[in-house]
Amino acid sequence: MISDVKALIFDVFGTVVDWRTSVARMSREFAKSHGIPEADWVQFACDWRDLYQPAMEKVRSGGLPFTKLDTLHRMNLDIIAKKYGLSNLPEEALDELNLVWHRLSPWPDSVEGLTMLKSRFIIGTHSNGNIALMVNMAKNAGLPWDVILGAEVVRQYKPIPETYDRCCDVLGLAPEQVMMTAAHNTDLVAARARGLKTGFVTRANEYGPDQTTNLKPSEKWDMVATDFIDLARKMGC
Amino acid sequence: MISDVKALIFDVFGTVVDWRTSVARMSREFAKSHGIPEADWVQFACDWRDLYQPAMEKVRSGGLPFTKLDTLHRMNLDIIAKKYGLSNLPEEALDELNLVWHRLSPWPDSVEGLTMLKSRFIIGTHSNGNIALMVNMAKNAGLPWDVILGAEVVRQYKPIPETYDRCCDVLGLAPEQVMMTAAHNTDLVAARARGLKTGFVTRANEYGPDQTTNLKPSEKWDMVATDFIDLARKMGC
Repeated sequence: MISDVKALIFDVFGTVVDWRTSVARMSREFAKSHGIPEADWVQFACDWRDLYQPAMEKVRSGGLPFTKLDTLHRMNLDIIAKKYGLSNLPEEALDELNLVWHRLSPWPDSVEGLTMLKSRFIIGTHSNGNIALMVNMAKNAGLPWDVILGAEVVRQYKPIPETYDRCCDVLGLAPEQVMMTAAHNTDLVAARARGLKTGFVTRANEYGPDQTTNLKPSEKWDMVATDFIDLARKMGC
Repeated sequence: MISDVKALIFDVFGTVVDWRTSVARMSREFAKSHGIPEADWVQFACDWRDLYQPAMEKVRSGGLPFTKLDTLHRMNLDIIAKKYGLSNLPEEALDELNLVWHRLSPWPDSVEGLTMLKSRFIIGTHSNGNIALMVNMAKNAGLPWDVILGAEVVRQYKPIPETYDRCCDVLGLAPEQVMMTAAHNTDLVAARARGLKTGFVTRANEYGPDQTTNLKPSEKWDMVATDFIDLARKMGC
Protein backbone atom coordinates (compact mmCIF):
# COMPACT_ATOMS: atom_id res chain seq x y z
CA MET A 1 0.00 0.00 0.00
CA ILE A 2 1.32 3.41 -0.95
CA SER A 3 -0.05 4.66 2.40
CA ASP A 4 2.57 2.52 4.19
CA VAL A 5 5.39 4.59 2.70
CA LYS A 6 7.43 6.40 5.37
CA ALA A 7 10.49 7.43 3.37
CA LEU A 8 11.27 8.49 -0.18
CA ILE A 9 14.80 7.93 -1.40
CA PHE A 10 15.90 9.71 -4.55
CA ASP A 11 18.16 9.26 -7.47
CA VAL A 12 19.89 12.63 -7.79
CA PHE A 13 21.84 13.11 -11.05
CA GLY A 14 19.16 13.81 -13.64
CA THR A 15 16.24 13.29 -11.24
CA VAL A 16 16.85 16.14 -8.77
CA VAL A 17 19.51 18.16 -10.57
CA ASP A 18 20.30 19.01 -14.17
CA TRP A 19 23.89 17.76 -14.48
CA ARG A 20 24.16 18.37 -18.25
CA THR A 21 23.59 22.10 -18.48
CA SER A 22 25.18 22.74 -15.05
CA VAL A 23 28.45 20.98 -15.94
CA ALA A 24 28.47 22.64 -19.37
CA ARG A 25 27.94 26.12 -17.93
CA MET A 26 30.52 25.86 -15.16
CA SER A 27 33.08 24.16 -17.41
CA ARG A 28 32.69 26.93 -19.99
CA GLU A 29 33.31 29.54 -17.26
CA PHE A 30 36.27 27.56 -15.97
CA ALA A 31 37.77 27.26 -19.46
CA LYS A 32 37.37 30.96 -20.09
CA SER A 33 39.06 31.89 -16.82
CA HIS A 34 41.97 29.56 -17.63
CA GLY A 35 42.44 30.74 -21.22
CA ILE A 36 41.29 27.42 -22.73
CA PRO A 37 40.08 27.65 -26.37
CA GLU A 38 36.33 27.62 -26.98
CA ALA A 39 34.78 24.15 -27.29
CA ASP A 40 31.43 22.39 -27.13
CA TRP A 41 31.03 22.24 -23.35
CA VAL A 42 27.68 20.49 -23.52
CA GLN A 43 29.43 17.70 -25.40
CA PHE A 44 32.19 17.85 -22.78
CA ALA A 45 29.57 17.28 -20.05
CA CYS A 46 28.14 14.34 -21.99
CA ASP A 47 31.58 12.85 -22.68
CA TRP A 48 32.42 13.09 -18.97
CA ARG A 49 29.11 11.53 -18.01
CA ASP A 50 29.58 8.73 -20.57
CA LEU A 51 32.53 7.47 -18.53
CA TYR A 52 30.45 7.34 -15.33
CA GLN A 53 28.84 3.92 -15.75
CA PRO A 54 32.03 2.15 -16.98
CA ALA A 55 33.98 3.52 -13.99
CA MET A 56 31.36 2.33 -11.48
CA GLU A 57 31.18 -1.00 -13.26
CA LYS A 58 34.79 -1.65 -12.21
CA VAL A 59 33.64 -1.34 -8.58
CA ARG A 60 30.45 -3.36 -9.11
CA SER A 61 32.39 -6.20 -10.75
CA GLY A 62 34.97 -6.26 -7.96
CA GLY A 63 37.82 -5.13 -10.22
CA LEU A 64 38.27 -2.02 -8.07
CA PRO A 65 37.63 -1.73 -4.30
CA PHE A 66 34.92 0.79 -3.39
CA THR A 67 36.09 4.16 -4.70
CA LYS A 68 34.04 7.27 -4.16
CA LEU A 69 32.54 9.11 -7.10
CA ASP A 70 34.70 12.22 -6.66
CA THR A 71 37.71 10.00 -7.35
CA LEU A 72 36.07 8.27 -10.32
CA HIS A 73 35.05 11.65 -11.77
CA ARG A 74 38.63 12.85 -11.41
CA MET A 75 40.02 9.75 -13.16
CA ASN A 76 37.48 10.23 -15.96
CA LEU A 77 38.40 13.89 -16.31
CA ASP A 78 41.98 12.89 -17.05
CA ILE A 79 40.71 10.68 -19.90
CA ILE A 80 38.86 13.50 -21.68
CA ALA A 81 41.17 16.39 -20.72
CA LYS A 82 43.27 16.29 -23.90
CA LYS A 83 40.28 16.41 -26.27
CA TYR A 84 39.17 19.67 -24.64
CA GLY A 85 42.58 21.28 -24.33
CA LEU A 86 42.75 20.87 -20.55
CA SER A 87 45.68 18.49 -20.22
CA ASN A 88 48.34 21.15 -19.65
CA LEU A 89 46.53 22.63 -16.66
CA PRO A 90 48.02 22.02 -13.20
CA GLU A 91 46.53 19.22 -11.12
CA GLU A 92 44.95 21.71 -8.71
CA ALA A 93 43.00 23.34 -11.54
CA LEU A 94 41.62 20.00 -12.67
CA ASP A 95 40.79 19.18 -9.02
CA GLU A 96 38.83 22.43 -8.94
CA LEU A 97 37.01 21.63 -12.19
CA ASN A 98 36.13 18.21 -10.75
CA LEU A 99 34.06 19.96 -8.09
CA VAL A 100 31.51 21.29 -10.60
CA TRP A 101 29.58 18.11 -9.74
CA HIS A 102 29.15 19.51 -6.21
CA ARG A 103 27.33 22.56 -7.53
CA LEU A 104 24.76 21.18 -9.97
CA SER A 105 21.54 23.17 -10.28
CA PRO A 106 18.22 21.63 -9.29
CA TRP A 107 15.33 21.35 -11.73
CA PRO A 108 12.94 24.30 -11.14
CA ASP A 109 10.47 22.23 -9.08
CA SER A 110 12.98 20.22 -7.01
CA VAL A 111 13.36 22.39 -3.90
CA GLU A 112 9.65 23.19 -3.60
CA GLY A 113 8.60 19.59 -4.21
CA LEU A 114 11.13 18.15 -1.76
CA THR A 115 10.12 20.69 0.87
CA MET A 116 6.49 19.61 0.48
CA LEU A 117 7.44 15.93 0.69
CA LYS A 118 9.62 16.53 3.76
CA SER A 119 6.57 17.65 5.72
CA ARG A 120 5.13 14.11 5.62
CA PHE A 121 8.01 11.79 4.79
CA ILE A 122 11.66 11.13 5.46
CA ILE A 123 13.45 12.27 2.31
CA GLY A 124 16.92 11.04 1.49
CA THR A 125 19.38 10.56 -1.33
CA HIS A 126 20.10 7.17 -2.81
CA SER A 127 22.61 8.41 -5.32
CA ASN A 128 25.90 7.09 -6.58
CA GLY A 129 27.37 10.44 -5.55
CA ASN A 130 29.56 10.44 -2.45
CA ILE A 131 28.62 12.11 0.83
CA ALA A 132 30.64 15.32 0.38
CA LEU A 133 29.29 15.76 -3.14
CA MET A 134 25.70 15.36 -1.92
CA VAL A 135 26.15 17.60 1.13
CA ASN A 136 27.84 20.39 -0.82
CA MET A 137 25.22 20.18 -3.56
CA ALA A 138 22.44 20.37 -0.99
CA LYS A 139 23.98 23.38 0.77
CA ASN A 140 24.52 25.15 -2.54
CA ALA A 141 21.10 24.41 -4.01
CA GLY A 142 18.95 24.38 -0.87
CA LEU A 143 17.94 20.73 -1.12
CA PRO A 144 16.34 19.93 2.26
CA TRP A 145 17.41 16.27 2.71
CA ASP A 146 16.78 14.54 6.01
CA VAL A 147 19.53 12.05 5.33
CA ILE A 148 22.30 11.41 2.83
CA LEU A 149 22.37 7.72 1.95
CA GLY A 150 23.60 6.11 -1.27
CA ALA A 151 26.88 4.69 -2.48
CA GLU A 152 29.29 5.88 0.20
CA VAL A 153 27.01 4.72 3.03
CA VAL A 154 26.25 1.33 1.47
CA ARG A 155 29.76 0.97 -0.05
CA GLN A 156 28.50 -0.16 -3.44
CA TYR A 157 26.96 1.35 -6.56
CA LYS A 158 23.39 1.15 -7.85
CA PRO A 159 21.82 -0.87 -9.32
CA ILE A 160 23.45 -3.65 -7.27
CA PRO A 161 20.48 -5.13 -5.32
CA GLU A 162 22.11 -4.83 -1.89
CA THR A 163 22.30 -1.04 -2.24
CA TYR A 164 18.50 -0.82 -2.02
CA ASP A 165 18.34 -3.35 0.82
CA ARG A 166 20.93 -1.45 2.84
CA CYS A 167 19.15 1.89 2.44
CA CYS A 168 15.97 0.39 3.91
CA ASP A 169 17.92 -1.36 6.64
CA VAL A 170 19.69 1.76 7.88
CA LEU A 171 16.36 3.59 7.93
CA GLY A 172 14.93 0.77 10.05
CA LEU A 173 12.14 0.34 7.51
CA ALA A 174 10.76 -2.56 5.49
CA PRO A 175 11.29 -2.25 1.71
CA GLU A 176 7.58 -1.60 1.14
CA GLN A 177 7.82 1.43 3.45
CA VAL A 178 10.42 3.05 1.19
CA MET A 179 9.79 4.54 -2.24
CA MET A 180 12.66 4.77 -4.70
CA THR A 181 12.10 7.88 -6.79
CA ALA A 182 13.89 8.34 -10.10
CA ALA A 183 13.65 9.64 -13.64
CA HIS A 184 15.29 6.42 -14.84
CA ASN A 185 13.24 3.28 -15.35
CA THR A 186 16.23 0.96 -14.77
CA ASP A 187 16.70 2.32 -11.25
CA LEU A 188 13.06 1.55 -10.48
CA VAL A 189 13.28 -1.94 -12.00
CA ALA A 190 16.15 -2.69 -9.60
CA ALA A 191 14.33 -1.17 -6.61
CA ARG A 192 11.07 -3.02 -7.30
CA ALA A 193 12.98 -6.30 -7.48
CA ARG A 194 13.99 -5.71 -3.84
CA GLY A 195 10.44 -4.91 -2.72
CA LEU A 196 10.63 -1.11 -2.62
CA LYS A 197 7.82 1.08 -3.82
CA THR A 198 8.60 3.01 -7.00
CA GLY A 199 8.01 6.59 -8.12
CA PHE A 200 8.76 7.80 -11.64
CA VAL A 201 9.24 11.48 -12.45
CA THR A 202 9.69 12.57 -16.04
CA ARG A 203 12.82 14.60 -16.78
CA ALA A 204 12.45 14.97 -20.51
CA ASN A 205 15.49 17.22 -20.99
CA GLU A 206 18.11 15.45 -18.89
CA TYR A 207 19.89 14.50 -22.11
CA GLY A 208 18.82 17.58 -24.02
CA PRO A 209 16.03 18.36 -26.47
CA ASP A 210 16.63 15.18 -28.50
CA GLN A 211 16.27 12.80 -25.58
CA THR A 212 14.64 9.50 -26.57
CA THR A 213 14.91 7.45 -23.35
CA ASN A 214 12.97 7.57 -20.08
CA LEU A 215 10.28 9.82 -21.51
CA LYS A 216 7.64 7.41 -20.21
CA PRO A 217 7.34 4.82 -17.46
CA SER A 218 8.39 1.39 -18.75
CA GLU A 219 6.22 -0.41 -16.17
CA LYS A 220 3.22 0.41 -14.04
CA TRP A 221 5.13 2.14 -11.24
CA ASP A 222 3.42 2.87 -7.92
CA MET A 223 3.57 6.60 -8.60
CA VAL A 224 4.06 8.52 -11.84
CA ALA A 225 4.45 12.29 -11.76
CA THR A 226 5.35 15.10 -14.11
CA ASP A 227 7.60 16.77 -11.50
CA PHE A 228 8.29 16.83 -7.74
CA ILE A 229 5.42 19.18 -6.94
CA ASP A 230 3.03 16.87 -8.78
CA LEU A 231 4.57 13.93 -6.90
CA ALA A 232 4.14 15.67 -3.53
CA ARG A 233 0.48 16.43 -4.27
CA LYS A 234 -0.15 12.84 -5.35
CA MET A 235 1.49 11.66 -2.12
CA GLY A 236 -0.97 13.73 -0.10
CA CYS A 237 1.29 16.67 0.78
CA MET B 1 42.46 28.95 12.66
CA ILE B 2 38.85 28.81 13.76
CA SER B 3 37.99 30.75 10.59
CA ASP B 4 38.98 27.69 8.52
CA VAL B 5 36.14 25.65 10.00
CA LYS B 6 33.60 24.56 7.36
CA ALA B 7 31.67 21.90 9.28
CA LEU B 8 30.59 21.26 12.84
CA ILE B 9 29.96 17.67 13.85
CA PHE B 10 28.07 17.03 17.06
CA ASP B 11 27.87 14.54 19.82
CA VAL B 12 24.11 14.05 20.29
CA PHE B 13 23.16 12.15 23.48
CA GLY B 14 23.57 14.71 26.24
CA THR B 15 24.94 17.44 23.97
CA VAL B 16 21.94 18.03 21.68
CA VAL B 17 19.21 16.09 23.48
CA ASP B 18 18.32 15.38 27.10
CA TRP B 19 18.27 11.55 27.14
CA ARG B 20 17.80 11.23 30.91
CA THR B 21 14.52 13.04 31.45
CA SER B 22 13.20 12.02 28.00
CA VAL B 23 13.76 8.29 28.58
CA ALA B 24 12.38 8.58 32.12
CA ARG B 25 9.22 10.38 30.98
CA MET B 26 8.43 8.07 28.06
CA SER B 27 9.26 4.94 30.05
CA ARG B 28 6.94 6.06 32.85
CA GLU B 29 4.13 6.58 30.30
CA PHE B 30 4.89 3.22 28.70
CA ALA B 31 4.83 1.45 32.08
CA LYS B 32 1.54 3.05 33.01
CA SER B 33 -0.11 2.02 29.74
CA HIS B 34 1.13 -1.57 30.22
CA GLY B 35 0.05 -1.88 33.87
CA ILE B 36 3.64 -2.03 35.18
CA PRO B 37 4.02 -1.07 38.87
CA GLU B 38 5.40 2.39 39.67
CA ALA B 39 9.19 2.61 39.82
CA ASP B 40 12.00 5.16 39.68
CA TRP B 41 12.07 5.75 35.94
CA VAL B 42 14.88 8.30 36.15
CA GLN B 43 16.99 5.55 37.73
CA PHE B 44 15.76 3.21 34.98
CA ALA B 45 17.05 5.67 32.35
CA CYS B 46 20.40 5.86 34.15
CA ASP B 47 20.64 2.08 34.54
CA TRP B 48 19.93 1.64 30.83
CA ARG B 49 22.48 4.28 29.93
CA ASP B 50 25.08 2.69 32.25
CA LEU B 51 25.13 -0.35 29.96
CA TYR B 52 25.80 1.80 26.87
CA GLN B 53 29.59 2.09 27.13
CA PRO B 54 30.21 -1.58 28.07
CA ALA B 55 28.10 -2.72 25.09
CA MET B 56 29.99 -0.49 22.63
CA GLU B 57 33.27 -1.59 24.17
CA LYS B 58 32.59 -5.10 22.88
CA VAL B 59 32.50 -3.66 19.35
CA ARG B 60 35.52 -1.41 19.90
CA SER B 61 37.59 -4.30 21.23
CA GLY B 62 36.63 -6.53 18.32
CA GLY B 63 34.68 -8.98 20.49
CA LEU B 64 31.52 -8.19 18.56
CA PRO B 65 31.27 -7.20 14.87
CA PHE B 66 29.79 -3.75 14.27
CA THR B 67 26.30 -3.80 15.77
CA LYS B 68 24.06 -0.77 15.57
CA LEU B 69 23.01 1.05 18.70
CA ASP B 70 19.31 0.12 18.39
CA THR B 71 20.40 -3.51 18.75
CA LEU B 72 22.73 -2.79 21.67
CA HIS B 73 20.00 -0.78 23.41
CA ARG B 74 17.61 -3.71 22.97
CA MET B 75 20.13 -6.19 24.41
CA ASN B 76 20.71 -3.84 27.35
CA LEU B 77 16.97 -3.47 27.94
CA ASP B 78 16.73 -7.23 28.41
CA ILE B 79 19.37 -7.01 31.14
CA ILE B 80 17.47 -4.43 33.23
CA ALA B 81 13.92 -5.53 32.36
CA LYS B 82 13.45 -7.79 35.41
CA LYS B 83 14.49 -5.11 37.93
CA TYR B 84 11.73 -2.84 36.61
CA GLY B 85 9.00 -5.47 36.25
CA LEU B 86 9.16 -5.48 32.45
CA SER B 87 10.35 -9.02 31.80
CA ASN B 88 6.92 -10.56 31.28
CA LEU B 89 6.00 -8.14 28.52
CA PRO B 90 5.87 -9.48 24.95
CA GLU B 91 8.91 -8.90 22.74
CA GLU B 92 6.99 -6.40 20.62
CA ALA B 93 6.28 -4.22 23.65
CA LEU B 94 9.95 -4.14 24.58
CA ASP B 95 10.81 -3.38 20.93
CA GLU B 96 8.44 -0.42 21.20
CA LEU B 97 9.99 0.76 24.48
CA ASN B 98 13.43 0.53 22.82
CA LEU B 99 12.36 3.27 20.40
CA VAL B 100 12.13 5.92 23.12
CA TRP B 101 15.73 6.71 22.14
CA HIS B 102 14.38 7.84 18.74
CA ARG B 103 12.24 10.50 20.38
CA LEU B 104 14.54 12.26 22.83
CA SER B 105 13.80 15.93 23.46
CA PRO B 106 16.36 18.57 22.52
CA TRP B 107 17.73 21.02 25.08
CA PRO B 108 15.76 24.29 24.83
CA ASP B 109 18.45 26.06 22.75
CA SER B 110 19.37 23.18 20.41
CA VAL B 111 17.04 23.79 17.46
CA GLU B 112 17.56 27.56 17.40
CA GLY B 113 21.32 27.27 17.80
CA LEU B 114 21.67 24.59 15.13
CA THR B 115 19.51 26.59 12.74
CA MET B 116 21.79 29.61 13.24
CA LEU B 117 24.91 27.48 12.72
CA LYS B 118 23.43 25.85 9.60
CA SER B 119 23.33 29.23 7.86
CA ARG B 120 27.15 29.37 7.81
CA PHE B 121 28.37 25.80 8.31
CA ILE B 122 27.69 22.22 7.40
CA ILE B 123 26.17 20.70 10.53
CA GLY B 124 26.16 16.95 11.09
CA THR B 125 25.90 14.29 13.73
CA HIS B 126 28.91 12.34 14.93
CA SER B 127 27.00 10.23 17.39
CA ASN B 128 27.17 6.60 18.38
CA GLY B 129 23.47 6.44 17.52
CA ASN B 130 22.54 4.63 14.32
CA ILE B 131 21.15 6.32 11.22
CA ALA B 132 17.45 5.49 11.81
CA LEU B 133 17.69 6.67 15.41
CA MET B 134 19.25 9.97 14.34
CA VAL B 135 16.82 10.54 11.44
CA ASN B 136 13.73 9.76 13.50
CA MET B 137 14.97 11.95 16.35
CA ALA B 138 15.63 14.81 13.94
CA LYS B 139 12.18 14.52 12.34
CA ASN B 140 10.51 14.37 15.75
CA ALA B 141 12.47 17.22 17.33
CA GLY B 142 13.07 19.46 14.30
CA LEU B 143 16.86 19.15 14.34
CA PRO B 144 18.00 20.61 10.99
CA TRP B 145 21.02 18.39 10.22
CA ASP B 146 22.70 18.64 6.84
CA VAL B 147 24.11 15.15 7.19
CA ILE B 148 23.88 12.15 9.51
CA LEU B 149 27.36 10.75 10.10
CA GLY B 150 28.60 8.82 13.13
CA ALA B 151 28.85 5.17 14.07
CA GLU B 152 26.77 3.51 11.36
CA VAL B 153 28.50 5.46 8.57
CA VAL B 154 32.02 4.91 9.92
CA ARG B 155 31.24 1.38 11.22
CA GLN B 156 32.90 1.93 14.58
CA TYR B 157 32.18 3.66 17.87
CA LYS B 158 33.66 6.84 19.32
CA PRO B 159 36.17 7.53 20.74
CA ILE B 160 38.12 5.19 18.40
CA PRO B 161 40.43 7.60 16.50
CA GLU B 162 39.40 6.43 13.02
CA THR B 163 35.80 7.52 13.65
CA TYR B 164 36.91 11.17 13.63
CA ASP B 165 39.19 10.66 10.63
CA ARG B 166 36.42 9.03 8.61
CA CYS B 167 33.91 11.81 9.35
CA CYS B 168 36.35 14.38 7.95
CA ASP B 169 37.18 12.16 4.99
CA VAL B 170 33.57 11.66 3.90
CA LEU B 171 33.00 15.42 4.15
CA GLY B 172 36.04 15.94 1.91
CA LEU B 173 37.54 18.23 4.56
CA ALA B 174 40.84 18.38 6.41
CA PRO B 175 40.56 17.72 10.19
CA GLU B 176 41.25 21.36 10.99
CA GLN B 177 38.22 22.35 8.89
CA VAL B 178 35.92 20.31 11.13
CA MET B 179 34.92 21.16 14.69
CA MET B 180 33.83 18.37 17.01
CA THR B 181 31.22 19.79 19.35
CA ALA B 182 30.33 18.04 22.58
CA ALA B 183 29.38 18.45 26.22
CA HIS B 184 31.90 15.72 27.10
CA ASN B 185 35.57 16.53 27.47
CA THR B 186 36.68 12.98 26.57
CA ASP B 187 35.05 13.26 23.14
CA LEU B 188 37.01 16.46 22.51
CA VAL B 189 40.28 14.96 23.75
CA ALA B 190 39.86 12.19 21.17
CA ALA B 191 38.90 14.63 18.39
CA ARG B 192 41.81 17.00 19.12
CA ALA B 193 44.23 14.07 18.95
CA ARG B 194 43.15 13.60 15.32
CA GLY B 195 43.56 17.29 14.46
CA LEU B 196 39.94 18.41 14.60
CA LYS B 197 38.92 21.71 16.10
CA THR B 198 37.00 21.41 19.36
CA GLY B 199 33.90 23.10 20.78
CA PHE B 200 32.68 22.55 24.33
CA VAL B 201 29.12 23.31 25.39
CA THR B 202 28.13 22.99 29.04
CA ARG B 203 25.18 20.70 29.76
CA ALA B 204 25.14 20.91 33.53
CA ASN B 205 22.02 18.78 33.99
CA GLU B 206 22.66 15.87 31.65
CA TYR B 207 23.11 13.64 34.70
CA GLY B 208 20.68 15.56 36.88
CA PRO B 209 21.06 18.28 39.51
CA ASP B 210 23.92 16.50 41.28
CA GLN B 211 26.12 16.22 38.20
CA THR B 212 29.82 16.56 39.02
CA THR B 213 31.49 15.82 35.66
CA ASN B 214 31.88 17.92 32.52
CA LEU B 215 30.79 21.09 34.24
CA LYS B 216 33.88 22.84 32.89
CA PRO B 217 36.27 22.43 29.98
CA SER B 218 39.19 20.18 30.96
CA GLU B 219 41.49 21.79 28.37
CA LYS B 220 41.65 25.04 26.47
CA TRP B 221 39.24 24.03 23.72
CA ASP B 222 38.98 26.13 20.54
CA MET B 223 35.46 27.23 21.48
CA VAL B 224 33.66 27.18 24.82
CA ALA B 225 29.99 28.12 25.00
CA THR B 226 27.16 28.05 27.49
CA ASP B 227 24.69 26.71 24.92
CA PHE B 228 24.20 26.36 21.13
CA ILE B 229 22.95 29.92 20.65
CA ASP B 230 26.04 31.22 22.44
CA LEU B 231 28.16 28.90 20.27
CA ALA B 232 26.50 30.16 17.08
CA ARG B 233 27.11 33.78 18.04
CA LYS B 234 30.74 33.07 18.89
CA MET B 235 31.11 31.37 15.50
CA GLY B 236 29.92 34.53 13.78
CA CYS B 237 26.35 33.50 12.97
